[in-house]
Amino acid sequence: MDFGTMVEHDALDIMGLNRYCNSSSSSSASERDGHLLKKLRGSLSRNYPQKNAEMLSAQYGMNLLLIGAALMLALTHHGPAVKEEHLLGFITALMVLQLLWMFWYVVRKKRQRNFAAEKDAHAGTRWIRGGLTLLAVLSLIMDAFRIGFFVGYHTCLSAVLWAYPVVHAIHTVSQVHFLWFHIKDVIRKYETFERFGVIHAVFTNLLLWCNGVMSEAEHFLNHHKRRLTDMGFMNFTVDDDEDNPHCNCTTSACTVFSSSLNYLYPFNIEYHIFVSAMLFVMWKNIGRTIDHHANHKKPNTRTTGLCLGPLLGLVALASTIGVLVVYLIYLEESVETQETAITMFYIYSIAILSLMCLAGVVGLLIYRAEGLPMDQGKNPSRQLDMELLFSSSVGSWLMSWCSVVAVISSSSSPTYRWTSLVYSLLLILEKYVQNLFIVESLYRQRPREGGLDASQDPGSPGIFTVAADMVPPYNGIINQAYDNQDKFCASMESEPEENGQVYSGARKPSQVPLPVVLDLEDKPSRKRQILKNITVFLFMCNVSLWILPAFGCRPQYDNGLEQNLYGFTTWSTVLNFAIPLNLFYRMHCVASLFEVFRKV
Amino acid sequence: MDFGTMVEHDALDIMGLNRYCNSSSSSSASERDGHLLKKLRGSLSRNYPQKNAEMLSAQYGMNLLLIGAALMLALTHHGPAVKEEHLLGFITALMVLQLLWMFWYVVRKKRQRNFAAEKDAHAGTRWIRGGLTLLAVLSLIMDAFRIGFFVGYHTCLSAVLWAYPVVHAIHTVSQVHFLWFHIKDVIRKYETFERFGVIHAVFTNLLLWCNGVMSEAEHFLNHHKRRLTDMGFMNFTVDDDEDNPHCNCTTSACTVFSSSLNYLYPFNIEYHIFVSAMLFVMWKNIGRTIDHHANHKKPNTRTTGLCLGPLLGLVALASTIGVLVVYLIYLEESVETQETAITMFYIYSIAILSLMCLAGVVGLLIYRAEGLPMDQGKNPSRQLDMELLFSSSVGSWLMSWCSVVAVISSSSSPTYRWTSLVYSLLLILEKYVQNLFIVESLYRQRPREGGLDASQDPGSPGIFTVAADMVPPYNGIINQAYDNQDKFCASMESEPEENGQVYSGARKPSQVPLPVVLDLEDKPSRKRQILKNITVFLFMCNVSLWILPAFGCRPQYDNGLEQNLYGFTTWSTVLNFAIPLNLFYRMHCVASLFEVFRKV
Repeated sequence: MDFGTMVEHDALDIMGLNRYCNSSSSSSASERDGHLLKKLRGSLSRNYPQKNAEMLSAQYGMNLLLIGAALMLALTHHGPAVKEEHLLGFITALMVLQLLWMFWYVVRKKRQRNFAAEKDAHAGTRWIRGGLTLLAVLSLIMDAFRIGFFVGYHTCLSAVLWAYPVVHAIHTVSQVHFLWFHIKDVIRKYETFERFGVIHAVFTNLLLWCNGVMSEAEHFLNHHKRRLTDMGFMNFTVDDDEDNPHCNCTTSACTVFSSSLNYLYPFNIEYHIFVSAMLFVMWKNIGRTIDHHANHKKPNTRTTGLCLGPLLGLVALASTIGVLVVYLIYLEESVETQETAITMFYIYSIAILSLMCLAGVVGLLIYRAEGLPMDQGKNPSRQLDMELLFSSSVGSWLMSWCSVVAVISSSSSPTYRWTSLVYSLLLILEKYVQNLFIVESLYRQRPREGGLDASQDPGSPGIFTVAADMVPPYNGIINQAYDNQDKFCASMESEPEENGQVYSGARKPSQVPLPVVLDLEDKPSRKRQILKNITVFLFMCNVSLWILPAFGCRPQYDNGLEQNLYGFTTWSTVLNFAIPLNLFYRMHCVASLFEVFRKV
Repeated sequence: MDFGTMVEHDALDIMGLNRYCNSSSSSSASERDGHLLKKLRGSLSRNYPQKNAEMLSAQYGMNLLLIGAALMLALTHHGPAVKEEHLLGFITALMVLQLLWMFWYVVRKKRQRNFAAEKDAHAGTRWIRGGLTLLAVLSLIMDAFRIGFFVGYHTCLSAVLWAYPVVHAIHTVSQVHFLWFHIKDVIRKYETFERFGVIHAVFTNLLLWCNGVMSEAEHFLNHHKRRLTDMGFMNFTVDDDEDNPHCNCTTSACTVFSSSLNYLYPFNIEYHIFVSAMLFVMWKNIGRTIDHHANHKKPNTRTTGLCLGPLLGLVALASTIGVLVVYLIYLEESVETQETAITMFYIYSIAILSLMCLAGVVGLLIYRAEGLPMDQGKNPSRQLDMELLFSSSVGSWLMSWCSVVAVISSSSSPTYRWTSLVYSLLLILEKYVQNLFIVESLYRQRPREGGLDASQDPGSPGIFTVAADMVPPYNGIINQAYDNQDKFCASMESEPEENGQVYSGARKPSQVPLPVVLDLEDKPSRKRQILKNITVFLFMCNVSLWILPAFGCRPQYDNGLEQNLYGFTTWSTVLNFAIPLNLFYRMHCVASLFEVFRKV
């Protein structure tokens, strides 16, 4: 509930009470009813409480996603009743609705240009929007290929399949425009309606993500089955009809289009999940009041002292591409080369994961040694970052624990049995350590240039705050903890990470100046250099570990250990759940580590 | 981070800086290193930042659950490698670990009795603990039956299967003791260690819940398959070996024990999920500082004016039991009676769901008309309540949307086709409305006795607060909104639902008294009476809708519409996910509605 609304509401209450007070004995029942009706209408439109409005819109969005999920589940059964047209038609309708809403929003915003709009500086930084634009461009190319494919087969394909990529292309262009110019907006007007619009956009993108993941997983699974049948392991009948239409291509490029699509899928998938995360932050920001004193310090992107991290990272990246190519070639050849390929993959992964664990542990130890205070400012996008890291790890952890159980209980013993066990355990440990490192980095306060403690950050609500009327740096730093212990104690009663803006109202100069010195520049900056190197190294390793599964290096399908224990269906289901989450995890880590790099 | 730690930390920083300041030119490098080492050790043990400690322990707990999930997945394949003993052994080990931790916690607590322990008044109210004790007693009976069963078959069963119910019984008794006396504790010492202990308990109970759900689902599915085979619909081979051991029972009561178990499963399942939710709140409370001025008003459990709600509720409950019995009998007889049973179920459900929707809408309209302010105090258990309501609805929504898609796309047309559609849509709507009603009720401030506006609640951080040195009722109510608009504005900058304790430090008397009257007692209390009736009615309807699926009335398995579209495997998977969530949803609604009843 915003301040304006509350004051209004307040005034209304007082008026109401006064009115009752003066007229309680004389007023007629009809007058009272009229007043009630007016109050009811008013509270339905304006004073709708925030918690309820959130629930209202979140439930709407969730139901959209579930309708899509129901259609997808029906599709996987390949029955005659529900066809791809139905799902794509539904998604297209949602996209059109989102387009209308975005159009309305932008037009209304233009008209009210004289209002000073509030912005959340943390949401959608420039480089995230830049990365998204890149992914969007690749998505557009994918749409172009799709349109080309459908032009070739237009005689036997439904118009919906044709309309979908066209609407998707328009949707992508408009959405990127919207993200560039409006993602930081903090909406304070027509809140309930806007909540519906934004959550609609969030869940439309999530549904597009689910659809992408499903198509990709189905395609990979069909390819996998065909390979197994070719090698004589299994006897699946793969319906080629499902993939290809029942008529001849009228142009010459159909095959090129359809095979190029597979390389573009991963980018399209990442694009949609990222957009929905960004829009979710926008949704959380609706009705919020932003602290304008917040820390807008320029990021420290100096690259002095960067050496070992980028170097090792480049080595990791190069060897990843080598491993990927060798793996994909060896996998197709024979059973022996397949076993070699899998062993190679595990050994390579063990090396890279060990180094990542080590880097993460060193980073955490540096933080322990530094003991800088935590930044407890309110920041929905950081909170979301943390929750997403944790929840997207779950997929990969489940997969790894399944592998561990499978290896331990396995009766067969291929050469890679124990390396696979070490790999799975390291994968679990690596995510554990990396999450801790990223969370700690995001929540640490940034040290000042010159290696000073970060606690003097202007506006950051730590123990030491700067008096509002004084100008940094280094004079006017006060110790409120000793000065106003009572007040401090009271403010601490709300949970630390959420009382970000508590201080801005109670800020006043104090009498105990803290002696501050500047002559220790070398020590913390050496630590900072190590942290920067670690971050760059982890960044490149995560890119590597994204590339491998995204382009088809998935030994979990090929090693056969888990399949024996869980059966083909269960294990494919686990992988179809875990691999997309893992891909998202890697991408999200890359984004978070970039943020860490700018902060360290 | 608690206040004590922060002040210490603070002092350490200042000392550190002073030390550096004085000795920066003269101190030797070794001295500096020694200091660093000490600081490192200190920060590893004491000053571990809260966000990181949370992540550390949450990741640990999640991995415990995933190991269990991996074992369960392996079990569902019925392979030779992983047996039930392994899973039960793992769970038993976790329970023993939890027992040790609880023992340690209780002993240490007893020793430190002189410390005034902090309590969270919102966590685990007395009636919730009472309800839990009831469920625990039923769980204990279940353990006794299990032990009896294993005594009968002790010659051919592994010792682990024997140890499990024994340890479970001890675990249940100790846990209930722990919940009665320690669930409200707010832990402020050894935080990192305690976090691990509590989260271990949370996830052990979640795993026990998962295990219960899996056993129950498997049992139901086997029963269903056997019935279908008996009726000649399908040809499944159900392994009776799986259910029964390979030797003769040495006592006469084995069959009685094993069939009684099935009626106790639902209670055991609810017990574990509830315990984990309560412990989760305890985990969230670790390191928190509680506002002692918080609202401890006695709940209003007067039952005057309760008439239509309980009456209709009792009718619903009675007819539910009738429907359940008829359904279970008709289902076994023939295809025709089965169709009648399903139609009867749908018509009955449509009636009850329509009434529930209506009740919810009326409740929401009353809230709109009242326009009472929202209670924005910090309250982790309420926040969790809301999130659980939302997330446990997802299962049922997915199921309903799947049914909707199935009905619309179905080619066959049984008599209950369109009633099933109406039922599914009403189920979605009912959850939507009921969630809104419960959330709004929980977040609304309670009105005073006599029908006055709630805004004068002592200690509740609304717009009007009571000066700390004044005593309610009705004198000393002040309008801080006009008095300290600046301060108010600043405090509003943190999000409304989270700035609960902001006021307690800044509370001071003001000069603008608000005219308050008491002569409107009848009107709001009439509204309250309607709300109370609605709540009681919804309460009993939710109990009814829990009873039906918990005791085997699951038409989603029997109507065949969805099975045709999704296939048996996919549809059973959806139901195995959705039905336990739905059961939890109903139970959780019952608990929440009781809370609402005490509040209205």
